[in-house]
Amino acid sequence: MGGPVMSQLVLKSDRIITPQGEVSGFVEIRDGKIHAITESYLGDYLDYTGKTLMPGFIDIHIHGWGRGSYAYKGNIESLRYMSEDLPKVGVTAYLPTTSTMPNDFLESSLLAAKEHIGEYRPDMGAEPIGIHMEGPYINKAYLGLQREDSIQQPSIEGFDHFNQLAGNQVKLMTLAPEIEGSLPLISHLRDKGITASAGHTAATFDEITAAIEAGLQHFTHAYSGMRGFHHRELGVVGALMYYQDTFAEVAKQTGITVKPEAFDILYRLKTDNRMVMMSDCMGYADFPDGYEFYHYLRKETFIVEGGKLHLKHDDGSVKTVDPCCYQEVAGLEMNYLESVRAVVDRLDHGLCSVAKIACENPAILAGASDRKGKLATGMDADILVLDDELNLVDVYCHGVKQPL
Amino acid sequence: MGGPVMSQLVLKSDRIITPQGEVSGFVEIRDGKIHAITESYLGDYLDYTGKTLMPGFIDIHIHGWGRGSYAYKGNIESLRYMSEDLPKVGVTAYLPTTSTMPNDFLESSLLAAKEHIGEYRPDMGAEPIGIHMEGPYINKAYLGLQREDSIQQPSIEGFDHFNQLAGNQVKLMTLAPEIEGSLPLISHLRDKGITASAGHTAATFDEITAAIEAGLQHFTHAYSGMRGFHHRELGVVGALMYYQDTFAEVAKQTGITVKPEAFDILYRLKTDNRMVMMSDCMGYADFPDGYEFYHYLRKETFIVEGGKLHLKHDDGSVKTVDPCCYQEVAGLEMNYLESVRAVVDRLDHGLCSVAKIACENPAILAGASDRKGKLATGMDADILVLDDELNLVDVYCHGVKQPL
Repeated sequence: MGGPVMSQLVLKSDRIITPQGEVSGFVEIRDGKIHAITESYLGDYLDYTGKTLMPGFIDIHIHGWGRGSYAYKGNIESLRYMSEDLPKVGVTAYLPTTSTMPNDFLESSLLAAKEHIGEYRPDMGAEPIGIHMEGPYINKAYLGLQREDSIQQPSIEGFDHFNQLAGNQVKLMTLAPEIEGSLPLISHLRDKGITASAGHTAATFDEITAAIEAGLQHFTHAYSGMRGFHHRELGVVGALMYYQDTFAEVAKQTGITVKPEAFDILYRLKTDNRMVMMSDCMGYADFPDGYEFYHYLRKETFIVEGGKLHLKHDDGSVKTVDPCCYQEVAGLEMNYLESVRAVVDRLDHGLCSVAKIACENPAILAGASDRKGKLATGMDADILVLDDELNLVDVYCHGVKQPL
Repeated sequence: MGGPVMSQLVLKSDRIITPQGEVSGFVEIRDGKIHAITESYLGDYLDYTGKTLMPGFIDIHIHGWGRGSYAYKGNIESLRYMSEDLPKVGVTAYLPTTSTMPNDFLESSLLAAKEHIGEYRPDMGAEPIGIHMEGPYINKAYLGLQREDSIQQPSIEGFDHFNQLAGNQVKLMTLAPEIEGSLPLISHLRDKGITASAGHTAATFDEITAAIEAGLQHFTHAYSGMRGFHHRELGVVGALMYYQDTFAEVAKQTGITVKPEAFDILYRLKTDNRMVMMSDCMGYADFPDGYEFYHYLRKETFIVEGGKLHLKHDDGSVKTVDPCCYQEVAGLEMNYLESVRAVVDRLDHGLCSVAKIACENPAILAGASDRKGKLATGMDADILVLDDELNLVDVYCHGVKQPL
């Protein structure tokens, strides 16, 4: 990571969310890192009294956001847009997430991510801290929005080739553990310190059990795209409910994909220690020209034509947006901050819980817990300043204030 | 309840399971009730040092056991057999449980239960403390082993007629809340202090929500005979997982009807405070002569013929038993004590948890918590003496030692 040497910066707040709970004091930032959190400080500081400081959100499952759609454009421009637009919704680090796409496209996508990770500077916005590959080793029986024609057979060689193109930046892989070749790959991922996650999978409970023994740690968009729960064949949902040490992620809480009560049940079982928030956002505005696709949950057809995005709803209504205008495209999808707002009152410990499920836990799964995910000495100064209504007052990436 | 005046009896143990945890001391029994639990006692006592004293199990869902099948014979003899045979498996009180049967049979069954409740003396065995009506107000879509031809439309008048025949001894009613007429009946049951429970039901999550608002408190054989869980339509299973104040019962843990891991998930959500054990035993040996029925979970055909019971397994094997010999019939079904043994190591607090889910909670649902379900002053002296392997050493009903 390049960039200029950062000057010292000190932030004062009476509500700093740390792993030890809420504290009052000063966050000293030097060279983009948290140098110390202290009760008193003699010198100049920025006074955020009355505001909350918490770690920036980490989105480990995000195909696109705002003006960029990495999964569908697969180029560095889409990633630059995403990095630039993500701090506006509280995300300070993310894993650009591929989709199950044709092999050539997937390969060039991985090259683009490697390049953007290499060029990243804090003044570019949120940091790409690696790559999440969603597929291509998935089960067509639980395809969701993935492409069936692009599913591949799991293999260690295939993965190593992808990861080499990616400059060894793959941090998380979503796969179907029941497909032949997946178990050795899961063990291989474990050996390389890469998180294996079950998703788009028809696995039985016993198949998930075997995968966990091989190294599976996580479940991609819990409940969705997986064999459901039954009391005699617990399926993937039963396995993620049962295995308490595994993580489970949920996407933005619109109430459409997963009912709030289903979120609550999962949260009670996983607790702050194993629940993970993510957005699964797509960046519809940046879909390729000529693209047309039907979203069965939104009941809308997305049509990209002549530099505009048209959304035709089943009810006949059409909405058209300008893909280059962030303000116009931002409302297309529920964003990370809105998702946090939607659940915070149902969590056990408010923003302290949010700091676990939206920051600390995703940092662990992204292999970045040594530098991301909490406000503590030595961590990157990725900091959100929030008012009482959880509006963003300021956002810092590596101590650099971002335009909102 | 008649019977002679009981003499005083004092039991000593270094492990007495009380609502306050395990204590060491003396249980003083007078006139069939626990007079006191004290640290010291001057006088004669029975020394159970090295053994555990705990409250007797209460089975709130039991159609038959040993040599008696109340649900299928419906007569007082079947109930006398059950009362006599239940202490042998640790059950000291129970709710004879009807099934969805033809109206005439159901009515005479209720009269028989009323009569047996009236005649009961502690030397007859386990106490019938009321009646559980499973049906006839159920949904044929989740019939299980109930009879479709005997399903009735729920009505307050219909229930009141049943309960009048039963001498107002109905304590628990299993019904399908989504059937027209159920909601007013649930409110009526609440007003009368009778527990309404959802079972054999296709209800949606919202229909269960409405039923809980009307007074529904409990779920009959959780997971089985009810609409399953899905994250967009949570169904009855999602509702019992979600609503933390409701009780949920599970039958004997054979691993056939409900996987152990599904039990664990439910237990984590319900905790000791809302989980309930029961047996759902049938008393196959006492089925009417000429009876033939296929048990789809056991994969066996039960045939009663010429005073004998033949069990034909799908694999071709046949087993024949003498219905009048307790030792021969006892092995036909997993019993309450075996169910407890099957789960005790997976509970949070061993036998203290068992005392909640097998004694205290069922006493609440049976409307008998003022006199049953725990070892405490003023409670009926229904006491199990167990060795370290959870074998029954002695069983007391109202302070009367039962033949084992």
